[in-house]
Amino acid sequence: MLKRYLPILTWLPHYNRRLGGADLLAGIIVTIMVIPQSLAYALLAGLPAVVGLYASILPLVAYTLLGTSRTLAVGPVAIIALMTGAALGGVAAPGSPEYLQAALVLSLLSGGMLTLMGLLRMGFFTNFLSHPVIAGFLTASGILIAASQAGHLLGIESNGYTVVALVMSLVAHLDEIHWPTLAIGAGSLLFLVGVRRRGKATLMRVGLSPSLAALLARAGPVLAVVVTTLVAWHFGLAERGVAVVGDIPRGLPPLTVPIFDAALWQRLLMPTLLISLVGFVESVSMGQMLAAKRRQRISPNQELVGLGGANLAAAFSGGMPVTGGLSRTVINFDAGAQTPMAGLFAAVGIGIVTFALTPLLHHLPIATLAATITVAILTLVDIPMVRQTWRYSRSDFSAMAATILLTLVEGVEAGIIVGVVLSIGLFLYRTSRPHSALVGRIPGTEHFRNIERHDTETASHVALLRIDESLYFANARYLEDTVYALVASRPELEHVVLICSAVNLIDASALESLDAINARLKDSGVTLHLAEVKGPVMDRLKNSDFLDDITGRVFLSTFSAWSELNRRQ
Amino acid sequence: MLKRYLPILTWLPHYNRRLGGADLLAGIIVTIMVIPQSLAYALLAGLPAVVGLYASILPLVAYTLLGTSRTLAVGPVAIIALMTGAALGGVAAPGSPEYLQAALVLSLLSGGMLTLMGLLRMGFFTNFLSHPVIAGFLTASGILIAASQAGHLLGIESNGYTVVALVMSLVAHLDEIHWPTLAIGAGSLLFLVGVRRRGKATLMRVGLSPSLAALLARAGPVLAVVVTTLVAWHFGLAERGVAVVGDIPRGLPPLTVPIFDAALWQRLLMPTLLISLVGFVESVSMGQMLAAKRRQRISPNQELVGLGGANLAAAFSGGMPVTGGLSRTVINFDAGAQTPMAGLFAAVGIGIVTFALTPLLHHLPIATLAATITVAILTLVDIPMVRQTWRYSRSDFSAMAATILLTLVEGVEAGIIVGVVLSIGLFLYRTSRPHSALVGRIPGTEHFRNIERHDTETASHVALLRIDESLYFANARYLEDTVYALVASRPELEHVVLICSAVNLIDASALESLDAINARLKDSGVTLHLAEVKGPVMDRLKNSDFLDDITGRVFLSTFSAWSELNRRQ
Repeated sequence: MLKRYLPILTWLPHYNRRLGGADLLAGIIVTIMVIPQSLAYALLAGLPAVVGLYASILPLVAYTLLGTSRTLAVGPVAIIALMTGAALGGVAAPGSPEYLQAALVLSLLSGGMLTLMGLLRMGFFTNFLSHPVIAGFLTASGILIAASQAGHLLGIESNGYTVVALVMSLVAHLDEIHWPTLAIGAGSLLFLVGVRRRGKATLMRVGLSPSLAALLARAGPVLAVVVTTLVAWHFGLAERGVAVVGDIPRGLPPLTVPIFDAALWQRLLMPTLLISLVGFVESVSMGQMLAAKRRQRISPNQELVGLGGANLAAAFSGGMPVTGGLSRTVINFDAGAQTPMAGLFAAVGIGIVTFALTPLLHHLPIATLAATITVAILTLVDIPMVRQTWRYSRSDFSAMAATILLTLVEGVEAGIIVGVVLSIGLFLYRTSRPHSALVGRIPGTEHFRNIERHDTETASHVALLRIDESLYFANARYLEDTVYALVASRPELEHVVLICSAVNLIDASALESLDAINARLKDSGVTLHLAEVKGPVMDRLKNSDFLDDITGRVFLSTFSAWSELNRRQ
Repeated sequence: MLKRYLPILTWLPHYNRRLGGADLLAGIIVTIMVIPQSLAYALLAGLPAVVGLYASILPLVAYTLLGTSRTLAVGPVAIIALMTGAALGGVAAPGSPEYLQAALVLSLLSGGMLTLMGLLRMGFFTNFLSHPVIAGFLTASGILIAASQAGHLLGIESNGYTVVALVMSLVAHLDEIHWPTLAIGAGSLLFLVGVRRRGKATLMRVGLSPSLAALLARAGPVLAVVVTTLVAWHFGLAERGVAVVGDIPRGLPPLTVPIFDAALWQRLLMPTLLISLVGFVESVSMGQMLAAKRRQRISPNQELVGLGGANLAAAFSGGMPVTGGLSRTVINFDAGAQTPMAGLFAAVGIGIVTFALTPLLHHLPIATLAATITVAILTLVDIPMVRQTWRYSRSDFSAMAATILLTLVEGVEAGIIVGVVLSIGLFLYRTSRPHSALVGRIPGTEHFRNIERHDTETASHVALLRIDESLYFANARYLEDTVYALVASRPELEHVVLICSAVNLIDASALESLDAINARLKDSGVTLHLAEVKGPVMDRLKNSDFLDDITGRVFLSTFSAWSELNRRQ
């Protein structure tokens, strides 16, 4: 029981020196690798860079205690940072103390919501984010984040949370391009793209093992950060107008207490829900994928608690909303992390940096961070997936397209809400006009298929109608129309058999419709039968009067209905 | 084409003296019968009584031209009046000119929305109001309306749009009971209940034919109105403090133009949607039921246009939102109406009353109208339906109970919104955790059923898993879990056959899950097969790479999968 809520108890008793060594190495690598992205994502959210470091310390400790994934690395991530910025921009001015306060409140609410959902075992909620909607959302967010970084790369100001606003703002300031900044930004960008495309192959060609080559290739951003920081420091670029990270307060994360302000909390509630859900989906997909690789399991509901704890820790230590990050998790996994202890080591590492080494980051150009974000984020843009979805299903594609379009022109919240509502709406619409087919016997078998697709035996006085959907309120009336139209078109009909092999549910509305159909057919001298009614559906029908009222019978199989009704003839 | 949009053209050419005679008689009877309820429902909506008369003239003409039901009678109805009052109470003070103006705007918006939905063929929207939600809503509204009339019956003031507010307001003024009003109210109430319970039987006992007796029994409210008006006039009850209808302006309906006020329109948008949908559902259910009795058909989409036209007519002639009414339609039908021409005759009749005879209504006590409403409305309260739903399905019952509860304590809008959202949510939740069953062969047949419910043949190296639900985003992950758990629990397994007889859809998310299952089973040395994939689902799979990647085969029937996989052994 205790183990369920404190998963650390499942692995800590078996912890040994071998695991410790592997985790320590992974922790050190993660520390070095994630510092640039932690700073960058804090800036992306409109927060001081140091907030990204604070959010990479205590939240990791909380996740180590509570999380079920062995390799997930928690911290600020791009999408959540973007959504955080959009949410906070609606309630306070970037740079103001209220903005910082709101970030803490957002972490607190998000932590509370995730924890509560976990304790109530509501992980299934995320099932309603369909894959096309998530893929569309990530693609559009990738474009949006890249657009938001363009200003930093060009050294001009640009603001906004939609592509339209960003592009307009960029165009308006296009005459103010700051060339030294652009040089740093474009140089870093080209270097990072090069390393990502050919880094591993090149390193392997000079004799490194594939795994070491892969790890070093991932260190591209670290190298870019070190080199451009040295360049900026050596040439005094900050004095020439190149934006740098600047002074970062040295010291451990402060103890912060999010303020209680009912109006603020209420305005942040909807963004909180979306940030929590999106963060959870990103994290849990990542966790499941990696757990499967090592044949481990994660528990989605306990993951909610783990991420909830991490966000609560962020709220009380000057942080920002966090989740399991794509790139930092891959780094952790590739660096050989064995248990969540690696996260604890990384937390200690980042703590040391924050405590003592922040002056080294003073001259780090913002443009370098922007290049890091841009290269990392463009992997989210998944055009093949868009094409594939178009080919497979126009309905899924339309939900995806709406998500992409709205995310780009209206912002992340509108995009994801419309995507979810549309995908649910389309599903309901589809089920409200169910496919049905008249079936006939495939000669010589007991198998019955659609008379329009297969050569079948039929009889003019018997209609075998297969209903390809659960019967519920949204399609109850449609069913009535279908049956009445069938009976009207075939005057010689004596028996209608509804084949219920695909009917997984008959709700109270559909039951009323069946009653109505039964009564109407009786008036026309047609007998209504059912066939292949499943156990759970039959159990429920027994609780109603329908089985007493039905004019015909309930057959176990279509074949027995067919034999019986043909024999009677 | 023209006939589709002007259904009058389908019956007017065949109109003859016999039909005309029947319609004229029905028109006269309806005129007399509906005057009290038209006045009463206007008062229920917080509007002057005459508005109810205006809303019973031009809207009837519009519906005669545009509607497809031969017998539906349009006008102010109780539920819509209640919802109108709740909506207007939110934007203006009852009795103020703004309140009257808002009523016109509500009619205009409702008319526009219904017409638009009709032209866009969106009648299917109402399918999402499930029967239990509608029944629950009507039951709670009946109670709510009865509570709202209690003040009029007792001669004390009471206000509010929730049962809680009404009861508190009644209790606060209980010491002000006006005894003469109570005498009129209680007397009318007892008389009306008596007539409704035993009127027809008594009249038949004195020798009247059943149909005439039924019609006369329905005239109870008219008799109550005539008698109490005479009593009030004779004893000068108005001077003694009994509320009466008072002066009603004489004359034809005025030409009114609803104002355009963006803020007001926006605030009325949601109420408009609900009023339109509820009104349409009430009207179309009534219309379909009566059409079925005479083997006629109505077209739901054209009905939207017809009701839309009626509401637009109300907006421009000083009226209020209207729809096809339960009681007035039954009166019309029983009185022998043959075509919508009966509605035209009723419109002329009510027009004559409004033009010349309103002084006769001066002394009509409000308490009599309240008694009329109360008796009429309590037929909406359907307790057996509540019990029946409880017995049949806890899930449908919970949507119904939430609708009833919220309608009573939070008002009509909250009630219906929560009912709809909950019934959709419960359906999605159910489909997100689909039933599945391992099936085996029923010996000697080609039929396969659940191994836990039937005696079946099985094979240890083959698992036949029947999935009882369409596969879509909400249950894609659940499917993965089910299959992985199955494989993990049976190490000797070599083949998994997913039987898709109940799978009516595989969306893009589920396709990804199938891909993942296929890959994961391949790693474990298990072959994945499909069986009984339906035509439309198969067509779609052919547009993906899945059929190339699947390790096993797609079998036409479960039996062929079974024979083939057992033979190979």
